[in-house]
Amino acid sequence: MNIPSRYVEDLVEHFASLPGIGRKTALRLVLNLLKRKEEEIEAFSKSLGEIKTKICSCKKCGNLSDAEICSICSQHSRNQNLVCVVEDIRDIMAIENTQQYFGVYHVLGGVISPMEGIGPNDLNISPLIERVKEGDVEEVILALNATMEGDTTNFYLYRKLVDLDVTITTLSRGVSVGTELHYTDELTLGRSIVNRTPFDLAPVKR
Amino acid sequence: MNIPSRYVEDLVEHFASLPGIGRKTALRLVLNLLKRKEEEIEAFSKSLGEIKTKICSCKKCGNLSDAEICSICSQHSRNQNLVCVVEDIRDIMAIENTQQYFGVYHVLGGVISPMEGIGPNDLNISPLIERVKEGDVEEVILALNATMEGDTTNFYLYRKLVDLDVTITTLSRGVSVGTELHYTDELTLGRSIVNRTPFDLAPVKR
Repeated sequence: MNIPSRYVEDLVEHFASLPGIGRKTALRLVLNLLKRKEEEIEAFSKSLGEIKTKICSCKKCGNLSDAEICSICSQHSRNQNLVCVVEDIRDIMAIENTQQYFGVYHVLGGVISPMEGIGPNDLNISPLIERVKEGDVEEVILALNATMEGDTTNFYLYRKLVDLDVTITTLSRGVSVGTELHYTDELTLGRSIVNRTPFDLAPVKR
Repeated sequence: MNIPSRYVEDLVEHFASLPGIGRKTALRLVLNLLKRKEEEIEAFSKSLGEIKTKICSCKKCGNLSDAEICSICSQHSRNQNLVCVVEDIRDIMAIENTQQYFGVYHVLGGVISPMEGIGPNDLNISPLIERVKEGDVEEVILALNATMEGDTTNFYLYRKLVDLDVTITTLSRGVSVGTELHYTDELTLGRSIVNRTPFDLAPVKR
């Protein structure tokens, strides 16, 4: 049976277009919203309507920002010569939470994915190359997800950057902290043996 | 780390206030929305903003509706003397999908739940009593969820209706179609033996 109200149906369709939300969940969300106060709904609707006009990309790094230059790029205490290349804002938040990184970022806005029709020209790649060519960047850290698409993009960026005067590094792959060895997958364990590091009592600086 | 844009943060808060959606999922949804076209976002925002003004309750049964009387109550082919009491529109959709019910509905909009501070006066109960007192209703089917709150509400409704000139029935409880007996819980299996029914070759009319 279809939903008897066209307006409910419309909103359910919109919610169901979001990733990971099906029609049943969408209807549950709409029924929950219908029980709220009108002001709350208005605030939600207004906040949603504003995102395309109010949120912009940082002109330097491509991060989401309310101003032209984002809060990270505008911090003078950060090393502007060290650039960490990430997929999106969630990766920045994850790295910031470690409190181990004091450089700046460059947000690609995705990874190369032929399956989804995303090529290098759809990503924020050429501004990165420009940034490096300008000569202020000493090191580029490739910190994309350890997936097929992430690795492809890492390789593409490496090819683009290798002839420029810049050090290219990537996140170390290895056994997670706190895991039991026999549960680690072969590929990771193999890499962690090949790329073994000098023993260090306090690798994380606090 | 907090989200660097106040507008993103606002929208994440709104999404995270929905049931079953945490801050991480909310951020994923907002990032997905940011990649969409402006018209799409505007349509979503408009659809959301309209729900409180455009969607009303059916004056007869309390179901969600675009008009004063919902599409089910206004069907002349339906038996208006047979009323099925349900919690919300999802239960109507489930019962309609069976194609076995030809009466009308009465939507309570919830169940009695002291834990959530929902009492009988917060629900659409007195219009049901009025409807029965007017004398047109021959049978009331109590079809609330088989939970503690549902049973409490069933009992409350029974007490309110028992002195009126109306037959009160409830959904039969028993073994699900297609289940193996030894997986059925004791309570359900016990009830299905106590409430055994005459053997019928074709219980469901198609």
